[in-house]
Amino acid sequence: MPLDLPAPHLLFLGDITNPLDAKTAIGVRDWRPEQCLGQWRLPGCTVDLGLPDMTPTAAVSAGAKSVLIGIAPVGGALASSWINPLADAVRTGLSIVSGLHQNLQSVPALAAAAITAQQQLINVRVAPANIAIATGRPRTGKRLLTVGTDCCVGKKYTALALTKAMSEQGMSATFRATGQTGIMITGGGIPIDAVVTDFIAGAAELLSPDAAENHWDIIEGQGSLFHPAYAAVTLGLLHGSQPDALVLCHEAGREAIDEYETFEIPDIKTCISRYEQAASLTNPRARVVGISINTSAMAADEAFQFCAEISGETGLPCVDPIRDDLASWVNLLT
Amino acid sequence: MPLDLPAPHLLFLGDITNPLDAKTAIGVRDWRPEQCLGQWRLPGCTVDLGLPDMTPTAAVSAGAKSVLIGIAPVGGALASSWINPLADAVRTGLSIVSGLHQNLQSVPALAAAAITAQQQLINVRVAPANIAIATGRPRTGKRLLTVGTDCCVGKKYTALALTKAMSEQGMSATFRATGQTGIMITGGGIPIDAVVTDFIAGAAELLSPDAAENHWDIIEGQGSLFHPAYAAVTLGLLHGSQPDALVLCHEAGREAIDEYETFEIPDIKTCISRYEQAASLTNPRARVVGISINTSAMAADEAFQFCAEISGETGLPCVDPIRDDLASWVNLLT
Repeated sequence: MPLDLPAPHLLFLGDITNPLDAKTAIGVRDWRPEQCLGQWRLPGCTVDLGLPDMTPTAAVSAGAKSVLIGIAPVGGALASSWINPLADAVRTGLSIVSGLHQNLQSVPALAAAAITAQQQLINVRVAPANIAIATGRPRTGKRLLTVGTDCCVGKKYTALALTKAMSEQGMSATFRATGQTGIMITGGGIPIDAVVTDFIAGAAELLSPDAAENHWDIIEGQGSLFHPAYAAVTLGLLHGSQPDALVLCHEAGREAIDEYETFEIPDIKTCISRYEQAASLTNPRARVVGISINTSAMAADEAFQFCAEISGETGLPCVDPIRDDLASWVNLLT
Repeated sequence: MPLDLPAPHLLFLGDITNPLDAKTAIGVRDWRPEQCLGQWRLPGCTVDLGLPDMTPTAAVSAGAKSVLIGIAPVGGALASSWINPLADAVRTGLSIVSGLHQNLQSVPALAAAAITAQQQLINVRVAPANIAIATGRPRTGKRLLTVGTDCCVGKKYTALALTKAMSEQGMSATFRATGQTGIMITGGGIPIDAVVTDFIAGAAELLSPDAAENHWDIIEGQGSLFHPAYAAVTLGLLHGSQPDALVLCHEAGREAIDEYETFEIPDIKTCISRYEQAASLTNPRARVVGISINTSAMAADEAFQFCAEISGETGLPCVDPIRDDLASWVNLLT
C-alpha cells in the first residue's frame, strides 16, 4: 500500500558529523529532489547536503509540509538534544516523517506538540501485521538482491539505479524497498529490520511475490553477512528473497566494518563465495552477477583502475553506478 | 527477572497429531514434573505425554492453577478451534500460560473470560524493552551454544542436561533460556525469536553477560542454519552469544527439515564446518566440541552404533543425552 507522505520536506540532519549517518537524507535528496526544499542543521552539524540551510519557520514560509528525519543513528533512537527543536518545528506547522525504530508518538514532547498544532507524526519503519512464516516455496518471476560487504556501501542506490536502467531498456523491473529510505523514496515496501526475527524470511517472501517469468524484482539489500550486529537481517532477507542474481556492493578502500573497526571485511572473492553459499539454501542457482563499487573518495582514473582490477580478479562486470553506465549488468539480465 | 507462573499446570495439547508440536509440554513435563498435574487433549489429539487425562474442571478440583499451552505450532498462533475450550477453562478458574507469538489478550473471548473469572493471561514470549544493538565486544567467562541440524532435535534438552551434569561435577554453569519452553522451565531468559531482527544479536549479548573466567553459560540454541524460515534467528543468536564451544544436535534418521521436506539436511561434517565458519565472525576460537544425537526412535544397540559411527567420522564425542552419561563432554570443558 503506497504511503502518502506530506511534501515537500525540510531535511533534518541534527548535529551529526559522520556523512554515513545522513544516508536517509542523501537518498531522498538524490531520488526525490523535487520534494526537498532545504536542510535543517543544529549547531555542531558538519554534514552538508548542498541544499539551502533553512529554519523550520523559513521552510513553512517556503511551502514545506514536513520535517523528514534524514539521519539513521545506530540503534535508531532520537538524541535527546533533538527533541525540543523538533517539537518547536511541529508547533511551527510541520509534520514529522521518521524512519527510526523509536516511535515518534512515544516521545511525550512530540506527541503533545502534534496534538496542539494538528500535525502528523509518521513512522515509516513499522512492519505490517500478520506476516506469515516463510514457506521456502520457489516463486515465479526473477529476483535480484543487492548485498554488501558492510552497511552504507550503496545497496539501495545500486538497486534504484539498476531498476531505472532496466526500465529505460524497456525491461519489466520493480524496485522493492526494505529500509526506511527506500520506503520514503518509493512510497512502499517493508522495513525488513523492524520485523520480528521468526518472520523475517516470511516478510521477504511477501515483499517479492510471484510474477511474470520475464519480470525482475530488484530488491534492496540490508546489512552485511560480515556485520556482528546485523548479519541476521541480511541472512533472513537473502533466504526469503530467493534471488536468482546478486550484486555485491562495496566501498573502495573500506577495510573494516564501519563503527566496528576490529571486524575486517574479507576479500571480495571470499565475500562472493559466502553470499552464494548462504543464498543456495533457498535458490541453488543464485550467483553474484556483478560488483558495485562506491568510489566516491577516488579520482576518476583511480576509480576506473580500481573497478578494472576487481573485474579482472572476479571475472564479473564491476562498475560504480554513480559514475558508470549500467549496460554491462543490464545485458546480463535480459 | 524470574517469572512467577501459577502452578501446578494442566498441560494443553489441543488437537495435535505430531509429537514435534508438543515440545513445550514435553519439556515442562521432563524438567518440572512436580508442576504438571495432567494433560488436556481435545478430540482428535493423538499425542500422549503419559500424564493423566483431565478436564479443566477435574484439574481445578485437583489443585491446578493454570492451563499451560503445551504446543508450539508453526507461526505461533492459536487455532480457532482451541479458543472456546480455553475460554471455558478460564471461567472454570484457571489462568493461561502461553509461549505463542500471539498475545492472549488479543483474543477477545479469552480477554473477556479472564476479566470475568479474575484469572491471568500470561505471555512468556515477550521480548524485553530497550535491547541495544550488538557491540561485538568480547566478554569474559566462557560460553557454549547448542546448535542444530533442524528445529526440535534436542538443543534445549542437551543444554539443560549438560548444565545439570556440569553442576553435579561442581563446575560453575548457568542454563540460558532462549525459547518459551526453556523460559517456562527456568523462570527466566529471553525469547530470542520474538526480538526485532536488528536487535537479535544484541539480545544474545544481553542474555549472556560478562562472567568469571571459569564460569560457563550454557545457551539454548534456536532453529538451524539450514532452515529456510528460521536461519536468521540461529545466526543472530550465534553471533551475539560469541560461543567458545558449540554442541551440534541432530535427530538420528532425519534427512530433511521438518515440514520443509524439499530442504535436505547436509551431512554432519558439513554442518560442523558451516557452524564454525558462521561463529568465527565474533569468536574465531569457536569449535564444535561434541555431537548430541536424539536416538529416541532407535533400539539401544542401534543407537550406540549410530553414535559410535558419528564419533568415528567426526573425531568428536557423540552421545544421546537421554541415554548416555555426559562425562565425555564435561571433561572437555573443565
